[in-house]
Amino acid sequence: MKRVLPPVALTLKRPVPSDIAVAQASVPRPISELAEDAGILKHELEPYGFTKAKVTLDIRDRLKDTPNGHMIVVTAITPTPLGEGKTTVTIGLSQALGAHLGKSVFTCIRQPSMGPTFGIKGGAAGGGYSQVIPMEDFNLHLTGDNHAITAANNLLAAGIDSRLLYEAKQQDDEKLIMGLCKKVDGVPVFSGYHLRRMARLGITATTPADLTPEQKRQVFRLDIDPNNITWNRVLDVNDKMLRKITVGLGDEEKFPRNTGFDIAVASEIMAVLALCNGLEDFRERARKMVVAFSTSGQPVTADDIGVAGALTVLMKDAVKPNLMQTLEGTPVLVHAGPFANIAHGNSSVIADQIALKLADYVVTEAGFGSDIGFEKNANIKTRASGFAPSCAVVVATVRALKMHGGGPKVVAGKGLDAVYKGENLELLRAGLPNLERHVKNVASYGIPVVVAINHFSTDTDAEVALVAEGAMKAGAFAAVKSTGWADGGLGVKDLGEAVVKACAQPSKFTHLYDLTDSIETKITKIAKSYGADGVDFSPEAAAKLKLFTELGYDNLPICMAKTHLSFSDQADLKGAPTGFRIMIRDMRASLGAGFVYPLVGTMRTMPGLPARPAFCDVDIDMATGRIEGLF
Amino acid sequence: MKRVLPPVALTLKRPVPSDIAVAQASVPRPISELAEDAGILKHELEPYGFTKAKVTLDIRDRLKDTPNGHMIVVTAITPTPLGEGKTTVTIGLSQALGAHLGKSVFTCIRQPSMGPTFGIKGGAAGGGYSQVIPMEDFNLHLTGDNHAITAANNLLAAGIDSRLLYEAKQQDDEKLIMGLCKKVDGVPVFSGYHLRRMARLGITATTPADLTPEQKRQVFRLDIDPNNITWNRVLDVNDKMLRKITVGLGDEEKFPRNTGFDIAVASEIMAVLALCNGLEDFRERARKMVVAFSTSGQPVTADDIGVAGALTVLMKDAVKPNLMQTLEGTPVLVHAGPFANIAHGNSSVIADQIALKLADYVVTEAGFGSDIGFEKNANIKTRASGFAPSCAVVVATVRALKMHGGGPKVVAGKGLDAVYKGENLELLRAGLPNLERHVKNVASYGIPVVVAINHFSTDTDAEVALVAEGAMKAGAFAAVKSTGWADGGLGVKDLGEAVVKACAQPSKFTHLYDLTDSIETKITKIAKSYGADGVDFSPEAAAKLKLFTELGYDNLPICMAKTHLSFSDQADLKGAPTGFRIMIRDMRASLGAGFVYPLVGTMRTMPGLPARPAFCDVDIDMATGRIEGLF
Repeated sequence: MKRVLPPVALTLKRPVPSDIAVAQASVPRPISELAEDAGILKHELEPYGFTKAKVTLDIRDRLKDTPNGHMIVVTAITPTPLGEGKTTVTIGLSQALGAHLGKSVFTCIRQPSMGPTFGIKGGAAGGGYSQVIPMEDFNLHLTGDNHAITAANNLLAAGIDSRLLYEAKQQDDEKLIMGLCKKVDGVPVFSGYHLRRMARLGITATTPADLTPEQKRQVFRLDIDPNNITWNRVLDVNDKMLRKITVGLGDEEKFPRNTGFDIAVASEIMAVLALCNGLEDFRERARKMVVAFSTSGQPVTADDIGVAGALTVLMKDAVKPNLMQTLEGTPVLVHAGPFANIAHGNSSVIADQIALKLADYVVTEAGFGSDIGFEKNANIKTRASGFAPSCAVVVATVRALKMHGGGPKVVAGKGLDAVYKGENLELLRAGLPNLERHVKNVASYGIPVVVAINHFSTDTDAEVALVAEGAMKAGAFAAVKSTGWADGGLGVKDLGEAVVKACAQPSKFTHLYDLTDSIETKITKIAKSYGADGVDFSPEAAAKLKLFTELGYDNLPICMAKTHLSFSDQADLKGAPTGFRIMIRDMRASLGAGFVYPLVGTMRTMPGLPARPAFCDVDIDMATGRIEGLF
Repeated sequence: MKRVLPPVALTLKRPVPSDIAVAQASVPRPISELAEDAGILKHELEPYGFTKAKVTLDIRDRLKDTPNGHMIVVTAITPTPLGEGKTTVTIGLSQALGAHLGKSVFTCIRQPSMGPTFGIKGGAAGGGYSQVIPMEDFNLHLTGDNHAITAANNLLAAGIDSRLLYEAKQQDDEKLIMGLCKKVDGVPVFSGYHLRRMARLGITATTPADLTPEQKRQVFRLDIDPNNITWNRVLDVNDKMLRKITVGLGDEEKFPRNTGFDIAVASEIMAVLALCNGLEDFRERARKMVVAFSTSGQPVTADDIGVAGALTVLMKDAVKPNLMQTLEGTPVLVHAGPFANIAHGNSSVIADQIALKLADYVVTEAGFGSDIGFEKNANIKTRASGFAPSCAVVVATVRALKMHGGGPKVVAGKGLDAVYKGENLELLRAGLPNLERHVKNVASYGIPVVVAINHFSTDTDAEVALVAEGAMKAGAFAAVKSTGWADGGLGVKDLGEAVVKACAQPSKFTHLYDLTDSIETKITKIAKSYGADGVDFSPEAAAKLKLFTELGYDNLPICMAKTHLSFSDQADLKGAPTGFRIMIRDMRASLGAGFVYPLVGTMRTMPGLPARPAFCDVDIDMATGRIEGLF
């Protein structure tokens, strides 16, 4: 039933060329052929050019009786700011399983944001001989899903402000209703979103004329507090000047209001896309999104603005996952890319649902360290998807562990200190507690943990052995060196074998907390998994705790907005810190995505550009048509 | 050689259902089959799903020896705010030529902006039985070209502000150079855009170290005047609160600056896309775009920011036109949609180039009345494309002519006065001078003019006859009733026959002005074609006249930014006004697009939403998957 695809052979060059050179040296298979081999029928595939395609959601209906494959979640230790190659291991593992171990495999990963691509970080297609191709399409527009999110997010924002202005301008309730309603023969009538608002308010009537004056105000005056609009605009670009802005300064508007732009992937719509199970569920969640509070403190939703249907229409193609391929011809579904620190950092439920029907092994990735992406995968995503991972892979590097052991600061864009380039077992040993805590934490969810030691050319055998020893002591099922960057799937074969064995283990997946726990209890349980002694709430956070409980948000999972650079809320507290408390500065709720997110420290939701942005090197060679400078 | 496609039969219903109902009742042909029939080879087509595809630019090389077909430009009289059905006539004419007259035909039209789609105006796919399908895709994301423009525009904006902040922060020139340059072995080196700037400045050197301190400042300090940044950010949404904003208010930035957002289609990048002849030309034009002036008044370009290559990469797919189809199965290229009042309002040169090779008749549309879109087609677009129209179609309606004759105000979203719904020959006759001036103006370019009387059900035969008589008196080649909305191509057969005859006429296309004319002379010639006695310049405009002449911009064509609702600069001056002067308030230059644009009155570059935006009715029927509420 499940398909093993014909492998695409790699010619490994030494030294390993740049990511873009490796990617451009390969010829992707026509996506329609790859899809056919993977078991996707012709009418279930919407090609976007020759190397990418959307998969329609009805494939799930056709395959509903096929048993699910194994879900393998790739996570990591606490990374350096450079990242520890989680995507490279994810892709390499898929290439190993599919092209070297004869397994039926799919990869499900996130679509990157173009902000970092043109900023400092570069792309996110993996690296070296473990990549998704074409890396240019992957890192740029792909099929436009991030653009659809941007359009939807900003249509809603414009709708909120337009409503705010209109209500301020129109003080006569009867005229207000005339303006806001559809008219039949000149008489205002209710739309569906009015009726749903009335249901929430406990008001019944068949026409606006039936409402009492008080009810008219309740139904039609959203009475948005301009100082309590929680919905920001977004752009898929690193633009720090937009972090804090004043809008409404035009002569016609004269309604100044402070707000800001976030990066597009931080939009709640992205979090919703990743967690929904289809277009109808998307609309249901979109309706619930709280975008502001009224002057009396009542939540105002996207449905109150009357825009949830239009948002759904804007997302009608974006809900379909994007099919691409690895360098060795294994299929990849790229879908959704929610910000990992203020949202859940995991690719979409829909892509997983499809991949689990098509393959025996589905490899996915959860953003940052296990305290961030994996915790949210386990406690948020699995609750939305209804299925659990069979096994987790924790990616560790000698570099990051040396940093945790007390090595000098690692800074993006600056050269690495010498300790990271030669053997230093002492520093490495001192860093192992970070790995150990990640392994223990992940194992506590009841699944086997395989540690992937993502190998750099300067790592010595003794260093690798030491990491493996530490991992096994902490309770890992296996700890295996992985050289996917240099060797492609061939270098991840051992890891692949360990993962296959791990998936055959009995697993009894369990959550860290119950949804019925109070918000405070849930946060405390998560904080304790970080090694914290407990949790403190600022007065703002304590007020939200009370408000959210009153509003019934206390039955939602928690999405901690915390730095990914430490288990604690202090980015420079490395290793496996103890004896600290977690301070909750404030709390927000994403009612559409369905989680409460406590802000631990100040999370930046709009990155900036460096002095010399990555875009300076990006160009096209007009003779060959090749893109240059992406990395 | 040139292909006549098999017609798709229409079943005409009475009364004519809504646009979306008509569109959804039709089944589009698979786009790959349509493309094959149209003479596009398999490798020249990049399908995006089953109903839209991109056509690769190399098709032009294959067909370079094929003679061009006839270009037919559809323009109009001065419209009411409701529009007079120019797109409906354009599509209907194509359906008539292809499906009823056995001709080889292509349509080239603009991609609409999603702002108006969700605002007041609705979509732009034509109407009734003359539409591009699927109208949902046409009116929404299509293949993402507008999103690519938004991304490119805003990457450049972020780059400008980031550079501004960095130069302000880094007062030490040596450190500035270290930050701005790529380093080889720790030593800063020039990039291509540095060398191009140096060439403009007349500075030669091989490394930054060779520069004198003064030269270092000249090359590396752009010294952007924060009060003279002419590049705005854009969004494809009607968001009036973004018209005037203050950015840079964040604690880290602390660099407040007033700016604003325009609608995406008003971006110069859109104007460039429409006028360029390929990716290399795009890059050349992108490099030239002036985005700001330095404190000493020197232009700062996109190339100075180092971003032109990245912009080109972002546009690599957007330069390819999008293939769709009409209700009767004739091929349509949808490509670019520049704002018609501050830009040139015409679809792309590239799409025309391809269509003219594939078809004997290419029908295209130029935005608003002939004083706006057609004048810019004739004097800007034909200069970029190198080919001229064989014939023009001027669309007239009884409704608009009655308005010009003194009928009551026509307002979008409000009901029409009774005079527009019954015969009123007197009012109509009084409005004919507007038609006559449009016909004479267009004919003065040396091409035959066919008047299309776009018929509404309330128009009487006597009214139609009166319009035809007026048109012929003004020098039209023919004047023909057109009922494409109600009857599809069948209702535009007579117009099609007239157009075929007109194209067979000898034509000697001529421009209204020479590029070597001074800016003042060019503007005056255009203003006189409006009926004005002359032109006045505000002090600001006069200063720009001097500056632009000094900077060498005086050899560019002129793109008048004027209201489309009157020949004059007063929207309420209807008919064929005389005895007025045109006041040039200010002037700007689009160096990438290659035109100077005088601002005649205040042009709004960011529309707003009404009290009840069109998005309120947009939704999906989850049972059928059909989109509702687009129009």
